[in-house]
Amino acid sequence: MQARFDEVKAQLQAALDTAMADLPKGELRDAMAYATVGGKRIRAFLVLESARLHGVTDQAALPVATAVEALHAYSLVHDDLPAMDDDDLRRGMPTCHLQWSEATAILAGDALQTLAFRLLTDEAIGDADARLRLIRAFSDSVGAKGMVWGQALDIAAETALEPLDLAAVKRLQGAKTGALIRFAATAGPLVTGEDLQPLDDYARALGLAFQIADDILDVTGDEDVTGKRVGKDDAAGKATFLSLLGLEGAKAEARRYANAAEVALEPYGEAAENLRELARFVIDRDT
Amino acid sequence: MQARFDEVKAQLQAALDTAMADLPKGELRDAMAYATVGGKRIRAFLVLESARLHGVTDQAALPVATAVEALHAYSLVHDDLPAMDDDDLRRGMPTCHLQWSEATAILAGDALQTLAFRLLTDEAIGDADARLRLIRAFSDSVGAKGMVWGQALDIAAETALEPLDLAAVKRLQGAKTGALIRFAATAGPLVTGEDLQPLDDYARALGLAFQIADDILDVTGDEDVTGKRVGKDDAAGKATFLSLLGLEGAKAEARRYANAAEVALEPYGEAAENLRELARFVIDRDT
Repeated sequence: MQARFDEVKAQLQAALDTAMADLPKGELRDAMAYATVGGKRIRAFLVLESARLHGVTDQAALPVATAVEALHAYSLVHDDLPAMDDDDLRRGMPTCHLQWSEATAILAGDALQTLAFRLLTDEAIGDADARLRLIRAFSDSVGAKGMVWGQALDIAAETALEPLDLAAVKRLQGAKTGALIRFAATAGPLVTGEDLQPLDDYARALGLAFQIADDILDVTGDEDVTGKRVGKDDAAGKATFLSLLGLEGAKAEARRYANAAEVALEPYGEAAENLRELARFVIDRDT
Repeated sequence: MQARFDEVKAQLQAALDTAMADLPKGELRDAMAYATVGGKRIRAFLVLESARLHGVTDQAALPVATAVEALHAYSLVHDDLPAMDDDDLRRGMPTCHLQWSEATAILAGDALQTLAFRLLTDEAIGDADARLRLIRAFSDSVGAKGMVWGQALDIAAETALEPLDLAAVKRLQGAKTGALIRFAATAGPLVTGEDLQPLDDYARALGLAFQIADDILDVTGDEDVTGKRVGKDDAAGKATFLSLLGLEGAKAEARRYANAAEVALEPYGEAAENLRELARFVIDRDT
């Protein structure tokens, strides 16, 4: 898996650079580039592996992976803003609004979302119907019934009188981080028009395992390794999988979801080994 | 023209309501709806008239017009934020971040951009190639080489040592307000794959006439009529068409562009009378 990850990372950075090469020079483009550097590229990896399982080449899937990472970068830039999570550290660097300005960070996020949609029109991906299927699923995943809705729920929870219960946290995270992960993991069958179900089941479970691990890292993690501030959820009195289940309970739940993710891949047999390894990795990572 | 405008307004509000009907209930959806109420609907009018001139029905063009107005609403919500233009009044109502919160305004703008792209996938518009042509042109118009780039130039100008000269103001406004107007006005030939040039020429001139009139209204307008604060450019020491040309010079320049817009419509003959009337209207309006 690691070799494939390294390959994905290199391809992605080159594709992001190319996608921004024809934009007018200036602070806006610099801030967009800044926001897209680094990252684990888990979502791009999901796109390329999902594609491979459905006979879609890396070359065809790369614009989709790039779109997903551009969208993810925009969501981080906006989530980090003072009016939102007010974060100062991301991927080991000052957040975009500190490096540049709040105005530039808002605009860079806006333009990264636009860029993501632009990338999904790339003819390399496949025929027009395939690209439109992707664009429609993508908009449903990242808009007001997907990722942005999850972020709105998260913001609302901060001022709610009662902390969320487990079902509400699952619903929130299923949208906030889950929706884009599901899009990424189903990109292959979206391109070919094949059955999404096994990869969608995989991604639902993977997303929850990933988020539980994130909640655990927020308490047990090291800022020098994670590249972002830790202990923030607890300080904010936020309901998380950890606050609701305890450390051992949360670890067990993460393992349960990681196993469920592996089981969902059965129809793909040996070919899905990289995705199985990813499910084990997300609950084991320290970053 | 007025009858057609009233028709467009009614169709638009219904289409926006329908587009948001299936979103999860809550503050995010309410803020999105709030941001899309009112407005002159000039961009929607351009889409529907451009479509009509190329034999595209209102029914087919309506999702495009709705996308353009959703995108425009997002741009206003983000432009009004404290970190940007810090406005408190828009369309006669408190700006979105004052009515709700900064976080909700950022997210509502984000989700309105997503919604705009979703609308452009609507099968009612035409075949898959037509929709992809629209999506590609749209992303070029509103992203980091179009509208958002113009807004970034505008923000940068506020802290520049020297005020912009006329060429720089034209370049800025050609992107900030011009790019979306050009997309709207060329929507018809974009759908049919026909020649964009006459309508693109029209829209370039119309956009500049519109912006000069806006600059004039910022000085001579009445807040009760415009529904937004006036005198802001001058207070900020911003270079505008008015500060560069004087009131009479700016009025003459607006007339010149409005005339050029009318001339560009010659290939369409009588059929383009509504668009000609619009060119006269934009320099004559008080709102």
